[in-house]
Amino acid sequence: MDFKIELQKKADIIDKALDKYLPKETSPQNLIFDAMRYSVFAGGKRLRPILMTAASEFVGGKIDDILPFACAIEMIHTYSLIHDDLPAMDNDDYRRGKLTNHKVYGEGIAILAGDGLLNYAFELMIKDALEDNKNLQRKILAMKEIASASGIYGMIGGQVVDLISESKKIDADTLDYIHNNKTAALIVASIRAGAIIGGADEELLKCLTEFAKNVGLGFQITDDILDIVGDEKKLGKKVGSDIDNQKATYPSIHGLDVSIKKVNELFNKSVKSIERFGEKAEFFIQLSDYLVKREY
Amino acid sequence: MDFKIELQKKADIIDKALDKYLPKETSPQNLIFDAMRYSVFAGGKRLRPILMTAASEFVGGKIDDILPFACAIEMIHTYSLIHDDLPAMDNDDYRRGKLTNHKVYGEGIAILAGDGLLNYAFELMIKDALEDNKNLQRKILAMKEIASASGIYGMIGGQVVDLISESKKIDADTLDYIHNNKTAALIVASIRAGAIIGGADEELLKCLTEFAKNVGLGFQITDDILDIVGDEKKLGKKVGSDIDNQKATYPSIHGLDVSIKKVNELFNKSVKSIERFGEKAEFFIQLSDYLVKREY
Repeated sequence: MDFKIELQKKADIIDKALDKYLPKETSPQNLIFDAMRYSVFAGGKRLRPILMTAASEFVGGKIDDILPFACAIEMIHTYSLIHDDLPAMDNDDYRRGKLTNHKVYGEGIAILAGDGLLNYAFELMIKDALEDNKNLQRKILAMKEIASASGIYGMIGGQVVDLISESKKIDADTLDYIHNNKTAALIVASIRAGAIIGGADEELLKCLTEFAKNVGLGFQITDDILDIVGDEKKLGKKVGSDIDNQKATYPSIHGLDVSIKKVNELFNKSVKSIERFGEKAEFFIQLSDYLVKREY
Repeated sequence: MDFKIELQKKADIIDKALDKYLPKETSPQNLIFDAMRYSVFAGGKRLRPILMTAASEFVGGKIDDILPFACAIEMIHTYSLIHDDLPAMDNDDYRRGKLTNHKVYGEGIAILAGDGLLNYAFELMIKDALEDNKNLQRKILAMKEIASASGIYGMIGGQVVDLISESKKIDADTLDYIHNNKTAALIVASIRAGAIIGGADEELLKCLTEFAKNVGLGFQITDDILDIVGDEKKLGKKVGSDIDNQKATYPSIHGLDVSIKKVNELFNKSVKSIERFGEKAEFFIQLSDYLVKREY
């Protein structure tokens, strides 16, 4: 298996499905369809849906059964970025080298496009669950994972604490809370939802959850590290913005050396939690390497 | 049955349930719990949950079975008001005589409080559907009604067209689109979801849907009329704001006389769609009178 080819193949499948599910007809409200599509197709790497489909395949599920949910999680992730970029939040004009949603469509439409994506994600999952009646219970359980990870006890909770911590000195526990909720929660939910829909038993689900938690946190700490030592061209964004914004990060609290050590430790833990599955775990291990130990 | 007492009784039950379901524990993100509670308990009349519980009882359902969904619809309604009041949208400082969410908590938290309420509404419905396993299918069908009414083909669609129509001359069809989607859709979904969970058969559901559509549109046209001829004290808000904001309304397009005639016609139609059910329909008929023909 060539990891990069496999990754691209999955991303292409997700892209096609997103294009299929996102509305594009001409109607009075079509400006919001444009705005939603603009941000969904603004260069995202589709990490969360890739993790979800990979988890589903890992436990024996079929990729077609998971696509509506995989698209839904990408819509939820995209909505969170649109709202996060707003002037009242991070006030970013660019993301991945493109103008942010509110810079193109105005703040009002950007708020509604975010709302629309979150709501539409649930519409998509509900419709799919009802159509796939024999898996209804499983899909509602997966929806529960996603909803609680994206809500006030997950991603939104992390964003709130991130927002109120701006320009403040925060302690290590608060930073852990932000990292675990703002970023890792949705990554964990992607993997758990995929495994649940794919039909994982308790033991498999436990291993994949352990894997997901380590990858989720490792991914965010690496993000913090790259903002100090990363290559702007490869990252597609300016480095040093956390320092400019006086943002507390893992390196700013624990130092760069400890952060790098922590990332390696998290990578090793992620491998350990699934290596017993042998060849089947290979894609996931390379994915962890790619996400947690990325160098750009 | 004393209508006003019955109305208050239902509102009290909803208030208690909202207080039960909305989080209030002390935790890092508790500012958002405060912000969510602030707007949910800012004097809403609980119309949508009252309609939902009434519809459920109408078809033989029990009020306890519907409370999580009734609270969820009020949370969705409240989130839409919080986002609608933001500077980038209607830019309102007051609602029902109290400061709007962003005037108290700042724009960033207000955006997140809205996001949080929308997401939490789905969390609540999903959890309830899974716990009430014998009604799982019905509850997911009800969730589908609510999700599509609150999304880009419903309420959000209406808000988008409303936003892009500001200070523009719009035609009667566009205004109908705004009214039917921005306001009526969620009212229709409240009644349909209640009826579905309560176990309505096809014919009952059809009658109640017809009733709901007339009430939903009538309610909004009455709102437009009251902005011209209403009593500020009784309304709890300034009249004339639509004219000040150059907002297209039913009276501004069709004239006041035609609007009043239309409201009466919608009220009569709403009565006609359910009067065959005799005494059982009494609360709904009085509710239609209260919502569509209100004088303040």
